[in-house]
Amino acid sequence: MDSLEASSSYTFSQRAQQLTSSAIREILKVTVLPNIISFAGGLPAPQGFPINVMREAFNKVLQEQGEVALQYGPTEGHQPLREWVAQHLSIDGTTVSADEVLIVSGSQQALDMLGKLFVDPGSKVLIEAPSYLGAIQSFSLFQPLYEGVPSDQDGLDPEALTDERVKDGRFIYVLPNFQNPTGLTLGLERRKALVRRCAEVNLPIIEDDPYGELRYAGETYPSLLSLGRQAGATVIRLGTFSKVLAPGLRLGYIVAPAPIISKLAQIKQATDLHTASLTQMAVYETIKNGFLEQHLPSVRELYKQQCGYMLDAMDQHFPNTATWTKPDGGMFIWVTLPQHINASKLLQKSVEQGVAFVPGEPFYAGTEGQHNTLRLSFVTVPEDKIRQGIKVLGNLIKNY
Amino acid sequence: MDSLEASSSYTFSQRAQQLTSSAIREILKVTVLPNIISFAGGLPAPQGFPINVMREAFNKVLQEQGEVALQYGPTEGHQPLREWVAQHLSIDGTTVSADEVLIVSGSQQALDMLGKLFVDPGSKVLIEAPSYLGAIQSFSLFQPLYEGVPSDQDGLDPEALTDERVKDGRFIYVLPNFQNPTGLTLGLERRKALVRRCAEVNLPIIEDDPYGELRYAGETYPSLLSLGRQAGATVIRLGTFSKVLAPGLRLGYIVAPAPIISKLAQIKQATDLHTASLTQMAVYETIKNGFLEQHLPSVRELYKQQCGYMLDAMDQHFPNTATWTKPDGGMFIWVTLPQHINASKLLQKSVEQGVAFVPGEPFYAGTEGQHNTLRLSFVTVPEDKIRQGIKVLGNLIKNY
Repeated sequence: MDSLEASSSYTFSQRAQQLTSSAIREILKVTVLPNIISFAGGLPAPQGFPINVMREAFNKVLQEQGEVALQYGPTEGHQPLREWVAQHLSIDGTTVSADEVLIVSGSQQALDMLGKLFVDPGSKVLIEAPSYLGAIQSFSLFQPLYEGVPSDQDGLDPEALTDERVKDGRFIYVLPNFQNPTGLTLGLERRKALVRRCAEVNLPIIEDDPYGELRYAGETYPSLLSLGRQAGATVIRLGTFSKVLAPGLRLGYIVAPAPIISKLAQIKQATDLHTASLTQMAVYETIKNGFLEQHLPSVRELYKQQCGYMLDAMDQHFPNTATWTKPDGGMFIWVTLPQHINASKLLQKSVEQGVAFVPGEPFYAGTEGQHNTLRLSFVTVPEDKIRQGIKVLGNLIKNY
Repeated sequence: MDSLEASSSYTFSQRAQQLTSSAIREILKVTVLPNIISFAGGLPAPQGFPINVMREAFNKVLQEQGEVALQYGPTEGHQPLREWVAQHLSIDGTTVSADEVLIVSGSQQALDMLGKLFVDPGSKVLIEAPSYLGAIQSFSLFQPLYEGVPSDQDGLDPEALTDERVKDGRFIYVLPNFQNPTGLTLGLERRKALVRRCAEVNLPIIEDDPYGELRYAGETYPSLLSLGRQAGATVIRLGTFSKVLAPGLRLGYIVAPAPIISKLAQIKQATDLHTASLTQMAVYETIKNGFLEQHLPSVRELYKQQCGYMLDAMDQHFPNTATWTKPDGGMFIWVTLPQHINASKLLQKSVEQGVAFVPGEPFYAGTEGQHNTLRLSFVTVPEDKIRQGIKVLGNLIKNY
C-alpha cells in the first residue's frame, strides 16, 4: 500500500487547500475523552429524545409504506412534511405555503446549499461577530469575504448596517434566538429595524433558528421571516428537527420565496438527490398529530434546570471580573473574561484539570476575535459535574 | 406575499446563475404520470427492497442503542460500518482499512464532495462520453472544463488519454461496470491500461461502481481500486447501498487513501456534519451477518429476467438499422438509432403514445452529444408493459 501515498501528487482545489484542521472536530475529540467534564459540546440532551415514539413511527412507516419509504423520492421533500412545516410556520400574520419549503439533511446542509446559491469567491457575506462556527466553516468553502457585524447584549446592532458595510453583500446570516455561541436573543425593536434596513438595501436575511422552540424564559418574539415579509425583505429561514426531536436523524428545512426554493432544489439535486425518504416519513408520522406540543415542555424544563445549575455555580465560583450572558433558552452561555486572560491558554490548563469548553476566537469571522471569551454548554452534564467543573474553571480564572 | 417577489433583487452566485432546469428532474416528472410506460427512470425495483429485514433492524437499533442512534455521530461514519466496508472491499489482493473509508449520504453526495475537493472554476475534469448525468450536474456546480474521453463497446479507451488530454486534469471519472447510461463494462485489459496510464501521469481515478454487485452474466473483473493500487495509481472508489438494499436510505461510501479521506472528512463536516447515525446503524445491523450474500442472488435474477424481456422485445420490434448494448448487469440499455433520427424529437412522439425514455444528449459532457442515442431502463416495468412499450418505440423508429 505504501506506493499509494508515495505516488500521490494530486492537485486539490483552492478551497480544499485552505482547509485547516477543523476547530469543531478538535473540540469534539476532547469531549469524548473519559473523565472530562465537557462544557464544550453542542450535543442536545439524549434524555430529550423520544426514542420509543420514533421507534414506533419507523416501524409503522416501514410496515405500511415500505416500498415508498425505501425508494428514491422527490428532491423538494416528502410532501406531507413540507405541508406540516408550512402550517407550523404560518404564525404571526404570515402564511407559508408548501412550495416555499425544501426539506434538507439537517440545517448544516442548508448552509452548504446557501453558500452554493449565493457565494462566489470574494463575495461579501455579513455575519454576526461572533457567530456559529459551523456556518463559518460551511460558507468558507465558497471563499467569501466576511463582514463582521458587531453585536451587544441585545444581539446584532442594525445601526451597524451602514451603506458601506452592506454594499454588494450577498446576504446577512443571523441567529435571532439564544444565539450560538452567545446565548443572546435579538430584541423586538432590533428585529424590526433589521428587516426594514435589509428591505431598504435589498440584502437577503438568512434566519437560522435551531433553538427557537427551546425558550424557557421571557417572551417569544415574531420571527424575522414574519417581520421581514411584512417589511418586504427577502428572508430565508432555516429550521431543524435536531433540537426538538433528535440530531442523529439529520433532518431540517429551508423556508424561502418559491423562486429561491426552486433554485435550491436544483442545487439539492446535484448535492445529494434528496433527503432520506424513510427518515422524512417517520418524522412526519411522529409529529403529525401534535406530538411536539406534548413533548417540548419537558425538554424546555430540562434545559431550564440545567441552565439554572450552571448560572448558580457561576455566581458562586466565578470572580466578578468576569461577565456572562443569561440565556432565555437554548444551550449556551457566553463568558467574557478580564482582558489579560487568553481563553485558549485557559483551555490548556483546564483540560489538564479535567474540564473542557470552547474558546471564543474561532466564532469570529470578518473581525478580530476576542481572545478573552469562551462558550459553555450546560445541556448534557449532570448537576454535580456542572458544579464541580465550574468551580475548577472559576479557580483557574481567579488564579490566572 | 406579493411584496416578496416584487422586492427580490438578490444576487445569485455565478454557479447558480448557470443552473438551468435539470434534465433528470424533468424526466422524473414524466415517469410519474399515470398510464405512461416509463423506460426513463433510474429507480431500482422495489421488489428487491428487504423491507421486513430493515424494519427489524431499525427496531432493534432504536430499542438497544436509541440514545446513540439519535445523537450526533462522528463525521467519518459509524465505525463498525466503516470496518464492514473495508473488509468487503479487501479482495483481489487489496487490503482496505477502516480509516480509508468515509460514509456519505448516498454516492451523489460523494460526487459533490469530490467536486469541492478537486475542482476550481476552469479546472479540467476528464469524463467518459457519455457518462452519468448526475455526476455532470454535481461537478458542474464547481465550474470545471470537461474533457470528454471517447468510449466504444469495451468502455472508455485508455489510448485516448494522450498527454494533451490528461494535462492538468484534476481527475478522471469512470463507471467501470454496466455504466450509466450505456450498460457497458470496461474490459480487463483496458482496466489495466487505464490504471497504468493514470499512475504514469498522476491522474487520480474516481471509480463509481453503484451497479457492480448486480452482475447477472459474464465474469467479474477486478476493481480499478485493486488494480490501481498495484499500479501505484490514486483511486477513489465510490459505493452505495442504493442498489443492493434501497435508495431511499441515502447511504454510500468513499474509499480512498487516508490523506484524501481526512480532507474529505473536513469537507463532509462543513457540508452536513455527518450522515444519519440511525440509518448507518440500521444498515450495519442488516448486513453484518452476511445478509447481502443471501439477498443479492434474487435481485440479480430479477434484473436478469427484466433485461431479457426487453432485449427479446427489441429483437422482435426494433429495425435492424438500430443497434443497442447487451448489458451483463445493472439497469440500462443504450440504443443508437440511424443518424437521421433525433431522440429528443422521438421522445415527444413516444410520450404522446404513452412511452418514455431518456434521450442520450444530456449524458455527454466535453464533447458533442450524439442526437441519435437514447437510454432505456428495464428494471421497474412489468413484462407485458415492456413488450408493449418496446413495440410502440420500434414502430416509431421504423416510421420516423
